[in-house]
Amino acid sequence: MAGVSISTVSRVINNSKPVQDDLRKRVLDVMEQTKFRPNTIAQNLAKNESNLIGVMLPEVKNTVLDELIHGINHVSRIYGYNTMLSLTGGTLENELHYFNLFRGIQADGIILASDNLKGELIELIELSGIPCILVGRDAHSASIPSVHVDNITAAYEAVTYLIQQGHRRIAMIRARSGDVASGDHRFEGYRMALAEAGIPLARDWIVESGITVEDGIEAMRKIRESRSMPTALFCATDRIAIGAMHDLMENGLRIPDDVSVVGFDGIDMSAMIRPKLSTVKYSASEIGMTAARNLIKRIRGGEVSPRHWCVSHYLETRDSVRSI
Amino acid sequence: MAGVSISTVSRVINNSKPVQDDLRKRVLDVMEQTKFRPNTIAQNLAKNESNLIGVMLPEVKNTVLDELIHGINHVSRIYGYNTMLSLTGGTLENELHYFNLFRGIQADGIILASDNLKGELIELIELSGIPCILVGRDAHSASIPSVHVDNITAAYEAVTYLIQQGHRRIAMIRARSGDVASGDHRFEGYRMALAEAGIPLARDWIVESGITVEDGIEAMRKIRESRSMPTALFCATDRIAIGAMHDLMENGLRIPDDVSVVGFDGIDMSAMIRPKLSTVKYSASEIGMTAARNLIKRIRGGEVSPRHWCVSHYLETRDSVRSI
Repeated sequence: MAGVSISTVSRVINNSKPVQDDLRKRVLDVMEQTKFRPNTIAQNLAKNESNLIGVMLPEVKNTVLDELIHGINHVSRIYGYNTMLSLTGGTLENELHYFNLFRGIQADGIILASDNLKGELIELIELSGIPCILVGRDAHSASIPSVHVDNITAAYEAVTYLIQQGHRRIAMIRARSGDVASGDHRFEGYRMALAEAGIPLARDWIVESGITVEDGIEAMRKIRESRSMPTALFCATDRIAIGAMHDLMENGLRIPDDVSVVGFDGIDMSAMIRPKLSTVKYSASEIGMTAARNLIKRIRGGEVSPRHWCVSHYLETRDSVRSI
Repeated sequence: MAGVSISTVSRVINNSKPVQDDLRKRVLDVMEQTKFRPNTIAQNLAKNESNLIGVMLPEVKNTVLDELIHGINHVSRIYGYNTMLSLTGGTLENELHYFNLFRGIQADGIILASDNLKGELIELIELSGIPCILVGRDAHSASIPSVHVDNITAAYEAVTYLIQQGHRRIAMIRARSGDVASGDHRFEGYRMALAEAGIPLARDWIVESGITVEDGIEAMRKIRESRSMPTALFCATDRIAIGAMHDLMENGLRIPDDVSVVGFDGIDMSAMIRPKLSTVKYSASEIGMTAARNLIKRIRGGEVSPRHWCVSHYLETRDSVRSI
């Protein structure tokens, strides 16, 4: 009807190669007249691949997941894969729902961040046969590979550094239990470092918190109102640390003179605030790239036996810690 | 085969209602044995709706788009819609590609952020007949509604405030031209305020910049190396402003004593840095909620004539500006 070749129509539909403006217009006009909608799924079934990677994250706010997405997209584009993201809010119900949605649109593979990976979801992933990689935390599952930072070791090193600077009164603002990476594992590293130095855990100085700046402010208030003040503070994330520093300064306490602070994540803002925050740095973008690269290998049938990749981390020491 | 009712199978597939663990297991086992995959699209075609909203954004890093997504998801969930996101990187090629991908999976509607909305994309949207709303900037198109902050007026007010504090030597770090909202429109507000006060534009003090903190540092260096220093600085985004403040302080200049600074966006970090940054505040989450709400009205055939919604803004004055 448009008087053009089939390959021109295909180019317009898939936007795969440049098409002259007037030809594109003619094809689009005919598609409109005939109410033609290319059925992506029928096309996918025909060639038995969708070139689509599904990404399931709890949220992108207040986390380093924006960096992670950046890494996933960078590598996916190189290999010719599209990505689609869904935000689950971290509930099992949404995780199952979106997993089935991606399954329904024939996604080739899925990259998943889930704080509290439940058995039902693991079961669904295994039964589906869709290649899947977990990011941000260890999967504890033989069948699902994962890419993450070694949260326990990194937290252990950060707190050991504080102990080496002479601190023994060290508080921690941790994320909620159940949140495996920034909750349980980073707390476990803190616990190990104190135990090794023979320092008992002080209940008043361990506060569970959400992960926003405001949560950090609130958690710091609780520690300030405890019977005595710590000389140092380890925070599960930089945002929590930045909120805690805000609360300390607003209440006339000096950093690091009165309280030393160490964060975790190495977000750009950690170097912009004053004093500059000492923090555990790693590349969330690298986590995303490693996940995408190995997922694509699995999709293409490469021999990627389920395993767990750790990206490297290091303690960036800046101005928020002093020796005592 | 699983010895359960059809409605139980449906519940397992759609995860619509709770199912006993052993029943769920039986259904999943049979689905696995028979390689059954629920075809979401076939289901959608049958009921002529997908309950899916596509969201197309350039990126989520270094922007307020994380807040925006939060707003979109909040409202979409209330009305029973799923959302899927794709990141276009801001190129027309990807925008056309992902639009067609969403079309292929029968998305009911699309929320789109595009810095430089090209004619080809507008044409494709109009031809497709899929309800679409543009966020973050004015559409300049009669057929596509939009939700945004009034960038020109807000920037005009911020710069007029600096003039009222006695400043006449006012620099601007703007986003790149072509980036309509934080590039062109916010610069237009700056230009209008200076023109109204009879202050000529100084070429050395207007620097185009990317939108990361590092870009802000680099842009501020250029202004510092110009023949003379301004007494005030207006930045197109808070991240640019935070980078510029970092560069000023690292080079021994005091804020606001030597240079006053005003940002734009009101991100949480603007209140965490010292001095606290005066900035144009608005709710990106409200933009997302308004867009989702009105898109869903259009999807459901409500009488939403294409129009443009503005969310409110105000200047939050903090500690980074002084009177001279």
